[in-house]
Amino acid sequence: MNPIGYVHRDRPDEDVKDRNIVSRVVLDTEFVEGLIGIEEFSHVYIIFWLNEFKTTTVKLKGHIFGKPEQPFVGVFATRSPIRPNLIGQTLVELIKCKENVLWVRGLDANNGTPVVDIKPYPDWERGKWIIVKEFRAPDWLQRINK
Amino acid sequence: MNPIGYVHRDRPDEDVKDRNIVSRVVLDTEFVEGLIGIEEFSHVYIIFWLNEFKTTTVKLKGHIFGKPEQPFVGVFATRSPIRPNLIGQTLVELIKCKENVLWVRGLDANNGTPVVDIKPYPDWERGKWIIVKEFRAPDWLQRINK
Repeated sequence: MNPIGYVHRDRPDEDVKDRNIVSRVVLDTEFVEGLIGIEEFSHVYIIFWLNEFKTTTVKLKGHIFGKPEQPFVGVFATRSPIRPNLIGQTLVELIKCKENVLWVRGLDANNGTPVVDIKPYPDWERGKWIIVKEFRAPDWLQRINK
Repeated sequence: MNPIGYVHRDRPDEDVKDRNIVSRVVLDTEFVEGLIGIEEFSHVYIIFWLNEFKTTTVKLKGHIFGKPEQPFVGVFATRSPIRPNLIGQTLVELIKCKENVLWVRGLDANNGTPVVDIKPYPDWERGKWIIVKEFRAPDWLQRINK
């Protein structure tokens, strides 16, 4: 797996959890043709490599934020960046695409993060969008980190 | 990057594009604790490695299905399995989880495909779900492959 580009932020100290911030995905110029038509999508998935973390420290289960009063869950039930494979994935709003640069809103990746793929949203099959409006997810997720 | 498990299908000749079919993700038993709490989610992303394809054949741009009458787009505006990095990602319905096995509906991956990550749906931040109900996507996607 090789980077196709990198995340660029105006300020390296931006709060990446602020999903209102616009950041850029700057593709290596050799991949620019891969972006043809992407501006027809309002949203895309950015797949990135969590290069600041190490798999050697993966804990398969634990309390959220390491706090005993928080739910006890497995890593695949979380978005923890410390995972068996250091893959990050975020659905973002595509604001603009110009040449090899995408301006996106809502990317929770640090400045300099390697990007490995971009995929359109939503998925589709046989002429139908696959979007999930109705879902079930644990209540505790809405209580943490407010 | 290493597999955490594999896709299992009842019949190797199943039409993987039939999103009604239930298949299994069988995790290596060493990762079973990573699944604690995952059954609280009705939907998850399965991230897999498109090991049947080769990056040496990547075309960054082209007509959909290679047909001149189809739209001409870049690879990142498609879900083509032949991509600069062979990452597949599909949002599926999680039917059941028992020990190291997930039963999922809608996974468009072939029997034996290596799975590299599982992530919960939807994304969230500060107590709010991040779901995208309103989006813009090209019309031609609803015309192809019906």
